[in-house]
Amino acid sequence: MTEHVRVAVLGAAGFGGGELIRLLAPHPVAEVTFLGGHGSTGRTLEEVHPHLAGHPLRGRPLQPMDPAAVTGAADVVFLALPNGASAAVAPALLDAGLRVIDLAGDFRLEAAAYPLWYGFDHPAPGWLERATYGLPELFGDGVAGAELIANPGCFPTSVILGTAPLLAAGLVEPGPIHVDGKTGLSGAGKGPSELNGYAATQDSIRPYRFPAHQHTPEIERGIELAAGVAVTILFVPHLVPTVRGVLTTSYAALAPAVTSADLTDALAAAYAGRPFVRVLPPGAMADSKRVRGTNVIELQAVADPRTGTAVVVGAVDNLVKGAAGQAIQNLNLALGLDEATALPTLAVYP
Amino acid sequence: MTEHVRVAVLGAAGFGGGELIRLLAPHPVAEVTFLGGHGSTGRTLEEVHPHLAGHPLRGRPLQPMDPAAVTGAADVVFLALPNGASAAVAPALLDAGLRVIDLAGDFRLEAAAYPLWYGFDHPAPGWLERATYGLPELFGDGVAGAELIANPGCFPTSVILGTAPLLAAGLVEPGPIHVDGKTGLSGAGKGPSELNGYAATQDSIRPYRFPAHQHTPEIERGIELAAGVAVTILFVPHLVPTVRGVLTTSYAALAPAVTSADLTDALAAAYAGRPFVRVLPPGAMADSKRVRGTNVIELQAVADPRTGTAVVVGAVDNLVKGAAGQAIQNLNLALGLDEATALPTLAVYP
Amino acid sequence: MTEHVRVAVLGAAGFGGGELIRLLAPHPVAEVTFLGGHGSTGRTLEEVHPHLAGHPLRGRPLQPMDPAAVTGAADVVFLALPNGASAAVAPALLDAGLRVIDLAGDFRLEAAAYPLWYGFDHPAPGWLERATYGLPELFGDGVAGAELIANPGCFPTSVILGTAPLLAAGLVEPGPIHVDGKTGLSGAGKGPSELNGYAATQDSIRPYRFPAHQHTPEIERGIELAAGVAVTILFVPHLVPTVRGVLTTSYAALAPAVTSADLTDALAAAYAGRPFVRVLPPGAMADSKRVRGTNVIELQAVADPRTGTAVVVGAVDNLVKGAAGQAIQNLNLALGLDEATALPTLAVYP
Amino acid sequence: MTEHVRVAVLGAAGFGGGELIRLLAPHPVAEVTFLGGHGSTGRTLEEVHPHLAGHPLRGRPLQPMDPAAVTGAADVVFLALPNGASAAVAPALLDAGLRVIDLAGDFRLEAAAYPLWYGFDHPAPGWLERATYGLPELFGDGVAGAELIANPGCFPTSVILGTAPLLAAGLVEPGPIHVDGKTGLSGAGKGPSELNGYAATQDSIRPYRFPAHQHTPEIERGIELAAGVAVTILFVPHLVPTVRGVLTTSYAALAPAVTSADLTDALAAAYAGRPFVRVLPPGAMADSKRVRGTNVIELQAVADPRTGTAVVVGAVDNLVKGAAGQAIQNLNLALGLDEATALPTLAVYP
Repeated sequence: MTEHVRVAVLGAAGFGGGELIRLLAPHPVAEVTFLGGHGSTGRTLEEVHPHLAGHPLRGRPLQPMDPAAVTGAADVVFLALPNGASAAVAPALLDAGLRVIDLAGDFRLEAAAYPLWYGFDHPAPGWLERATYGLPELFGDGVAGAELIANPGCFPTSVILGTAPLLAAGLVEPGPIHVDGKTGLSGAGKGPSELNGYAATQDSIRPYRFPAHQHTPEIERGIELAAGVAVTILFVPHLVPTVRGVLTTSYAALAPAVTSADLTDALAAAYAGRPFVRVLPPGAMADSKRVRGTNVIELQAVADPRTGTAVVVGAVDNLVKGAAGQAIQNLNLALGLDEATALPTLAVYP
Repeated sequence: MTEHVRVAVLGAAGFGGGELIRLLAPHPVAEVTFLGGHGSTGRTLEEVHPHLAGHPLRGRPLQPMDPAAVTGAADVVFLALPNGASAAVAPALLDAGLRVIDLAGDFRLEAAAYPLWYGFDHPAPGWLERATYGLPELFGDGVAGAELIANPGCFPTSVILGTAPLLAAGLVEPGPIHVDGKTGLSGAGKGPSELNGYAATQDSIRPYRFPAHQHTPEIERGIELAAGVAVTILFVPHLVPTVRGVLTTSYAALAPAVTSADLTDALAAAYAGRPFVRVLPPGAMADSKRVRGTNVIELQAVADPRTGTAVVVGAVDNLVKGAAGQAIQNLNLALGLDEATALPTLAVYP
Repeated sequence: MTEHVRVAVLGAAGFGGGELIRLLAPHPVAEVTFLGGHGSTGRTLEEVHPHLAGHPLRGRPLQPMDPAAVTGAADVVFLALPNGASAAVAPALLDAGLRVIDLAGDFRLEAAAYPLWYGFDHPAPGWLERATYGLPELFGDGVAGAELIANPGCFPTSVILGTAPLLAAGLVEPGPIHVDGKTGLSGAGKGPSELNGYAATQDSIRPYRFPAHQHTPEIERGIELAAGVAVTILFVPHLVPTVRGVLTTSYAALAPAVTSADLTDALAAAYAGRPFVRVLPPGAMADSKRVRGTNVIELQAVADPRTGTAVVVGAVDNLVKGAAGQAIQNLNLALGLDEATALPTLAVYP
Repeated sequence: MTEHVRVAVLGAAGFGGGELIRLLAPHPVAEVTFLGGHGSTGRTLEEVHPHLAGHPLRGRPLQPMDPAAVTGAADVVFLALPNGASAAVAPALLDAGLRVIDLAGDFRLEAAAYPLWYGFDHPAPGWLERATYGLPELFGDGVAGAELIANPGCFPTSVILGTAPLLAAGLVEPGPIHVDGKTGLSGAGKGPSELNGYAATQDSIRPYRFPAHQHTPEIERGIELAAGVAVTILFVPHLVPTVRGVLTTSYAALAPAVTSADLTDALAAAYAGRPFVRVLPPGAMADSKRVRGTNVIELQAVADPRTGTAVVVGAVDNLVKGAAGQAIQNLNLALGLDEATALPTLAVYP
């Protein structure tokens, strides 16, 4: 076990970067030593994140993301960058021997998927093959010691954890699974737009970017890797007026004679002893607010024999279990620490 | 055409009752002449609805729902009562010759469905058979002259209008259709509870009462009546932090080779010339906020050939097109008026 | 009385412009005949305002604000433009004989105040002197027949109507009056910024731009014009997570022995018979939501003998009585119509 | 210093109780050993607080608040009870030798004030005199070793910390200070009511219970105790649509020639080295969201020479620095620990 690990956060000015800095503050081993930005270089931590004014790095300016500077200052790098930006900066850091945990989508798919779903050719396909998909409850063994970890997206986290064990056990069918996602506005990032403004969002419910959302192939691939079953996913995300919180409702064909108890038991068995998975008993309803600020996922599974459908609900805080918290969980595993180190499980409620 | 119609609103103190009173204020033919309440009798209109303090009925107290008093004061009765209460009061009013428009669920199903989905035996099955399901765009002919109109639920309105024409045209399959509903808090009524409190609701996304929600059989029956096709519906409603607005996303198997344009064209053709249906062109996304305060429904239909699925989105203001507005649309039709009389189409936005 | 008036809306793409178009739709005399834009020319009405897709002007593109084109198309012009832009465009329209109603702050103050509070030298001081401050309940006589009407700001409307009659009657003292304002996000306009984003605004309460807010001198001048008393105002606005609605709480020294009933009676007397002023009885509390979507102001006045203070609360919908609705009220008066023509008084609630 | 302290939380089912349990979880010395309830006895911790399902006390039922049972199980008692209930239960616990920290208002005033402001005669006036007002930054010396600590209210905390040092230094005048408060809904507790429902609260801004709010005399007394100056306060609280967060804006007459820098410097000097007070530099604006989930108060002071007024803004999380967090800060001081033990300073944002 490592005693002290120096951590760089690239993309420190965004919501994901801020959350990494906040959650790492009490970490006993990892210490943030480098803050990298793009448009915000030269501004101090508390200027870009006034809510972190009490952080020990108060006064520290964000620096350009120069690979040499990062390499000199850190052992591990979190990339909290826009899609496409991570793939551009990661190879130099990896070549220099740093461990990289990418919160963007740049190392989650196979190379062929990038032009189709992300709109760019992947610049480092060789590294793609060496990346580990960092969903610890399903791929934790691969994470230990990994040099490049692709931290999952918020929606895929909430879908894969709930459905993969059921598919693996043959309790539901792989045929098209309909995934209805609901998310708040923090997932859209800090950058302003007319559509994420308060006036346009209050009292608004609306789907977006479907059926071409880039989390679609990630969900399909994650389930296949975990369950050994090829599935087809239709993913329809919706914006609702919340800030933190993602809840997904997945509809899959139910295998014959399967009950809600069967589904629930299978999930409970799959995650027995895992600190961050809360499987709800039949009848209880998931609630994204109950996991706010935590690294916990709530899972709920219901069999509807009338229509032959399994409904699987997953709820996470998109900035914690759906991003920064899970990234730290991956760091913990990569370093040989308890996966729960420094990660909250008690929600900030109400 | 009638020149002047006297209208009673029973359940005048609730959100639905208040919205009826507000929307009827500029109506050229119908005039509210009786306000009936239950727990709030004796209180004036502006005491139960301070936002209607400028209404001509200011100072008018709510009265007990005595059938004789109602019969003497009104020609038409809107029942904005809890489920179960309408069926108790409607027969006496109907027997006295009044026209009844029920906003509850008490006349929407067949008698056998009530014990199963509503938890009570229907007290007036004879009237059930004489009720018209008041979804004007699909059953307008039946509404003209009807004595008992079952005004549809908010969720069923948003689902049936979007899917029935596609099923009738054979563009989608009837086999289980997954309906994912999202609603705000006004649908839960004015009565306080821990779960509809502001503190519990802000930043919360959660499913509720599924798979047993009572709108399930209403959607199935409405589609069958309209499209002549028996369908199976799984309906999963979710609460999101909004006040007005329902948006439903329905997932059905797509018939071979059907495109988004086919779906959109079928909807556009079905509702050509109808003032309250707005079919969005392919690529545009529905938004519940864009219909707020109006009697309009926005419909969006997308074919996903990759998964063989049709996605149909419907958005309404649950208190207007999903309740009071549609009830007035039914009144207009029943009276032989233009269905659009006094009903708003321009949304209160932002 | 005029039978038909052609109206141009310049700044048609903004929230204020959209609200003018919406509220004018049922107007029996005024008809919108010209939509002028700046960055959005060439886009149609429903592209810039999808919630107005049901408007008769559907399909009409926004046009450049060319004075000759406006003059040929309209008799009256509403300027729903940013501060500074109105003063640039108004003189040519006025010189061409059009009536101008300005919703910006460009004709509300004396020339000397502009460099200090708005940061620019006024380009048309001659027209400033000919402008009428369009607060109809206090200056309605001046509005009738006016060629240039300065439509008041939302905060000043809510403060001046509540305090001027009390100052005029000597019930409160002119010495510094502390005005604490609360507003939602629609007042900040459609343009996106990091600070009006949903993520930054939800669960946030914060003051802004004080003590230098430009509504300060407008409140002082409006009160002096109405009450004949020079006052000193300290105005501190706050952003709270709402969309529509402004509520101001004004604290003034109470004259000796004055009671809440005295204050309330003075307000009631001042506005007797006026359709848009609702003076609350002692003990009732104002609520911005109760006037949402209406041209109504709620006023509440409380004497606190313990501290010798009068508290005056005013609540308006900032886009209606605080902007577009009051502008139409001014239009009505200018045209010799009933001031209430086409203006709503029943709130969209909840 | 104590090594291990057993803590009882009475009123464990409410928002305040839940927050105490959450914040105490990582405390190195204090351990929650008793959960006391009233209407919720017999229900487990995770039943009353599903968001705390990951707590070590999972499965523990709430127990009746029997003094003997509490005395046997705990060394310190937090009373998170409604006003009036604390005073009934505290004496027996104190007599048994327990240390009591009361989060209600029952030990904050002098006996004579209770009938007037709280509507009841104080049942234990003898203990009133022995209570310490637990605002640690001003009265920390008194807290050390105190047996009965009256934990301040949320509004008083935000007002007294900002104004007392300025009054003590003679920078502002004591003559009536106008305090305009804004709060969210969590302060109203979990109990449902029509007024704290989501539908009534969204898009609503409204004052309440003024000028008789019970925090008025608490603010006056707290300032006098801290600054040695008798002041008169008019306090007007407002409800705005937030959950956590209180922001108060206080208006006081400015002493001659005092500048914003003078005010800011005085606050900075008063709280130098204190971990939970953040004095903003001139020009920066306070924001309640920036302290969400933390024990921090943001203070902002502005001199307006034009009107001779000082504006002092204070922002706290009402459940943390305004309640449970400050109570733990008092516990820390009472036990001789660092006051910051286990208390968060980095906000949960956005």
